[in-house]
Amino acid sequence: MNKQILLANRPIGLPKADTWQVNTTEIPEAKAGEIVVKNHYVSLDPAMRGWINDMKSYIPPVQIGEVMRAGTVGEVIQSNNNEKFKVGDIITGWGGVQQYSLSKGEMYYKVDTSLVPMPTYIGTLGMPGMTAYFGILEVGKIKEGDTVLVSGAAGAVGSIVGQIAKIKGCKVVGIAGSDKKCQYLINDLGFDGAINYKSENIKNGIKQFCPKGIDVYFDNVGGDILDAALSCLRMNARVVICGAISQYNNTKHIQGPSNYLSLLVNRATMQGMIVMDYAKHYKEAAMQMGMWMMQGKLKSREDIYEGIENFHETFLRLFSGEKNGKLILKVI
Amino acid sequence: MNKQILLANRPIGLPKADTWQVNTTEIPEAKAGEIVVKNHYVSLDPAMRGWINDMKSYIPPVQIGEVMRAGTVGEVIQSNNNEKFKVGDIITGWGGVQQYSLSKGEMYYKVDTSLVPMPTYIGTLGMPGMTAYFGILEVGKIKEGDTVLVSGAAGAVGSIVGQIAKIKGCKVVGIAGSDKKCQYLINDLGFDGAINYKSENIKNGIKQFCPKGIDVYFDNVGGDILDAALSCLRMNARVVICGAISQYNNTKHIQGPSNYLSLLVNRATMQGMIVMDYAKHYKEAAMQMGMWMMQGKLKSREDIYEGIENFHETFLRLFSGEKNGKLILKVI
Repeated sequence: MNKQILLANRPIGLPKADTWQVNTTEIPEAKAGEIVVKNHYVSLDPAMRGWINDMKSYIPPVQIGEVMRAGTVGEVIQSNNNEKFKVGDIITGWGGVQQYSLSKGEMYYKVDTSLVPMPTYIGTLGMPGMTAYFGILEVGKIKEGDTVLVSGAAGAVGSIVGQIAKIKGCKVVGIAGSDKKCQYLINDLGFDGAINYKSENIKNGIKQFCPKGIDVYFDNVGGDILDAALSCLRMNARVVICGAISQYNNTKHIQGPSNYLSLLVNRATMQGMIVMDYAKHYKEAAMQMGMWMMQGKLKSREDIYEGIENFHETFLRLFSGEKNGKLILKVI
Repeated sequence: MNKQILLANRPIGLPKADTWQVNTTEIPEAKAGEIVVKNHYVSLDPAMRGWINDMKSYIPPVQIGEVMRAGTVGEVIQSNNNEKFKVGDIITGWGGVQQYSLSKGEMYYKVDTSLVPMPTYIGTLGMPGMTAYFGILEVGKIKEGDTVLVSGAAGAVGSIVGQIAKIKGCKVVGIAGSDKKCQYLINDLGFDGAINYKSENIKNGIKQFCPKGIDVYFDNVGGDILDAALSCLRMNARVVICGAISQYNNTKHIQGPSNYLSLLVNRATMQGMIVMDYAKHYKEAAMQMGMWMMQGKLKSREDIYEGIENFHETFLRLFSGEKNGKLILKVI
């Protein structure tokens, strides 16, 4: 049988258990040209919270009763003359929060698990890694010697952003939610500084580690941290708007950055990004990042939980911060 | 005698009469290398409100007891072997809110009043015009066919922004504070649409005139209008942050744009600008705009009040909107 997580209703604020419905259905059969993938791992990402709002956005909302959208990696178990994939291929794509996915193989691509393990293909070599890569290089336009600040720094995107900036010769400071995460950033990932936003004054922390200000701020969180970063920009700084996890479960208005006039004073730029725009270049980014991983310059950390029926509780770890690295659910 | 307006104390919120002190002093004497300029016209600009806050910004704050900083245009009445200017030259620069200014002539340049009258050199061919020119062309990066929205559209900067965008083949919609101003934008300046933010729903107005959304938003005002514009961005839109007049007299926090995540959804850019950065290119901009004026493509409107002792009341017209075009004080 195929266990699935369906969107049962649209949450106001933080999703509740009844936001989701566990559904059990037959394992699908591939018709001509189709494949069935057995999804081993499902990617849990902050962006998923946005996809269940009934709002026009960069991607249509998940509808009530639909399988929850999610990135996956798994094995092809049926291929009915599909032109791209054969049985046994390990492929990654948008399988959704379910154990088996039927498709024509569109938006999937094949991966090589002899190089890195399966979960890494939905982490550092998947969407989060791509987001980090194109966000910091193409939007942040980092150059050697820049001072780079990143929020959500111990997370799937932030940890890669910071490491790429280090590889490119930047000074890197991270903001994270526990002393343990901060120690990980400094001791394991080689960050130059780390600020625990739950126990420290953020602005003081930034000023301590970035006395001359910030050239690039990569924002995953929004809210007060974005405002603190804006107040410390250098001339011609770039602010990359990748996400705003602190605001996704707001029941009222999103908190706009009241220090946005720092953009004017510092002739700075704030730019939003969506990783899908760079799809044509995913392959070269994956090759480059794979190389850095083999050279030991780029570390990937996944935090894997098990059981599709634990989807709800596991998903909430994104917002509580109770996770270490890329959050993944093993569903089979 | 030389009448001057000094900063007497720093206002909280809207400046009051006692923010300023009228001072009378001797007409200065030019020492070796110096000039004395008789200031005919003083430019009144929203940015001046920022200059009297005791805050680090793009320019040092005016100190208590100092002559209020302002752009001016006037006539050289003494030149003690100054290398750039001789008696009789009409020059524009930072003379401040006073009738006579002593300087070495730095930051001044000579103008030709046979082409356009003196006040235009602190309006369309001065800072406001330069701000409009570089803001919409260099930061807004307009191209033919773009839909351009501008706030403060009947003002010194906004009216020039809109006209340049029309010259460049854009569709232009303005936001202003009265029906009379809106009619002026459409009937006199050739805007394609105009929204009276005091009597209309701003977002509905934008949607009516820009059904496909906005490619470039030029913001002079901030606040709710910025938020409405952000909610109507097209893909890859550019938001030029030139000013935030609605927020300058706030006694509490500045209102941050709660719709800033539209930058992410639409892969849009919000960029701040300061006109001084383009000083090297003022001359070519002035030549281009002078040409457009002679061709009748660019209209300049000044609203000139008289009497240096009326500085306070006249300055407040910037914030009440009770003015038509570039606000100028004739002080001699």
